[in-house]
Amino acid sequence: MPQLAYVNGQILPLASASLHVEDRGTQFGDAVYEVCAVLNGQILDWQPHRVRLRRNLAELGITLDIADGPLGLQARRLIARNGHQDCLLYLQVSRGTARRDHVFPADAPANLVMTVRRFDFAQRVRQLATGIKVITQGDNRWGRVDIKTTGLLPNVLAKQAARAAGAFEAWMVADDIVREGSSTNAWIIKDGRIITHPTGTHILPGIARDSLIRLAREAQMLVEERAFTLTEARAADEAFLTSTTAPILPVVAIDGQAVAGGTPGPVTHRLAELVWNEVARQTGWRA
Amino acid sequence: MPQLAYVNGQILPLASASLHVEDRGTQFGDAVYEVCAVLNGQILDWQPHRVRLRRNLAELGITLDIADGPLGLQARRLIARNGHQDCLLYLQVSRGTARRDHVFPADAPANLVMTVRRFDFAQRVRQLATGIKVITQGDNRWGRVDIKTTGLLPNVLAKQAARAAGAFEAWMVADDIVREGSSTNAWIIKDGRIITHPTGTHILPGIARDSLIRLAREAQMLVEERAFTLTEARAADEAFLTSTTAPILPVVAIDGQAVAGGTPGPVTHRLAELVWNEVARQTGWRA
Repeated sequence: MPQLAYVNGQILPLASASLHVEDRGTQFGDAVYEVCAVLNGQILDWQPHRVRLRRNLAELGITLDIADGPLGLQARRLIARNGHQDCLLYLQVSRGTARRDHVFPADAPANLVMTVRRFDFAQRVRQLATGIKVITQGDNRWGRVDIKTTGLLPNVLAKQAARAAGAFEAWMVADDIVREGSSTNAWIIKDGRIITHPTGTHILPGIARDSLIRLAREAQMLVEERAFTLTEARAADEAFLTSTTAPILPVVAIDGQAVAGGTPGPVTHRLAELVWNEVARQTGWRA
Repeated sequence: MPQLAYVNGQILPLASASLHVEDRGTQFGDAVYEVCAVLNGQILDWQPHRVRLRRNLAELGITLDIADGPLGLQARRLIARNGHQDCLLYLQVSRGTARRDHVFPADAPANLVMTVRRFDFAQRVRQLATGIKVITQGDNRWGRVDIKTTGLLPNVLAKQAARAAGAFEAWMVADDIVREGSSTNAWIIKDGRIITHPTGTHILPGIARDSLIRLAREAQMLVEERAFTLTEARAADEAFLTSTTAPILPVVAIDGQAVAGGTPGPVTHRLAELVWNEVARQTGWRA
């Protein structure tokens, strides 16, 4: 079955899915996006994803002329026609196609693109046993990383540095504060407290982050949304990261130094149970 | 005559010039670009533009498999076939097309796009008589704006704020230091000294900026590359901006407050003569 993509109302082979060279996402990074996990053909957390998308569009003054209902229907139709049960849905909205000029174009309709790619979520469950390594990088991103824009070059360079160092992720650090990973949120556990950077303009408010806070609190666990330092992280009892594509992964080393003895810890293990049970509850998916 | 564009070795109608939706420029801002002025069919300052392009590609580890000679030939061929004597050449190189993943793809050739748009340079000469207005905006861009990437959303938002305020440009200010405009370099003149922010990671090293420094020094004028404050700018004898698309324009107001009595001053006028004489020397173009 050929891979299919959605571009401005049409479903077509991914290989021929394109945008004009003067798409403003392409020429200016003037676009926002979402990545959703799809398991058993069901979109996980669709509602918070579409709420975040609308909020980001509003922040940038981009008008998307498709209501939430039809948007969800088109996404589900694309997923169904691709035939993947477990995949990632990528959704991108740019300000439109217009003759190149920094100023917003007067009458360019937004460009909406969706793609679907098979994804092996079971691998993320297997990684719970070993955990992953992170490195740190200075956070040199712009001042509004709370808006999920396609201007991801600093994140790309950080992730590339992580892979070059044999690590899974790079944590972005500013003034010794660990803000978040290049595509994940960052967490530590100390004395039973689950700690992550508060929302604001310095981090992307992750859907998986929000979900984990809710699940942990429902389970009577203590969550603190506060800035923590790299020094604290190195001395933490446990550490982990969350994202749509890695709902929860234990962090066992930071910059080559073991965290919590270099093995996943019990609190992270308990949180992973909560996270994957929630996935099962929403989608019926089990590893 | 239909507008034409160049995409990866092919010249085709602009209307059908496209990139795959998984172009890394589109999905990650993982691309660099240049804009060159073309007058009388001649590319102004081609050599420094291609040197800067190569430097930016090297900074990001993007390999462009076309040598400088053929690149220049293709650009000139596109300009000739579009038939415009006076235009802007836009040249963009992304890391290539690849399944979406932050990490650099292993074997995706870079995507090279060039477009050509008619441009009215005479308007810029006419604007010398009246000058233009600027507003100020906080500089919230990433830490490597010296690399000319397509991650321009902060610049877009600043320029949009300028236009909404009836101004031509927004000057990006951090800790009271005027760094540069959203798409231009910023200058002031005080006691005969011509002052502009030094190169480094906080500004884009403009080709027009470099050219003006050289021309001014050849004319025995004093140029200081040093940070200047907004307070200094407000009290300056004159102010102006430079860019490829606005080789030199007097600034007559900052945030609604007149600079130098609200009219273009004599030093800027002298510099404009030097700039436009250099344009004439290279291309034969005269207003």
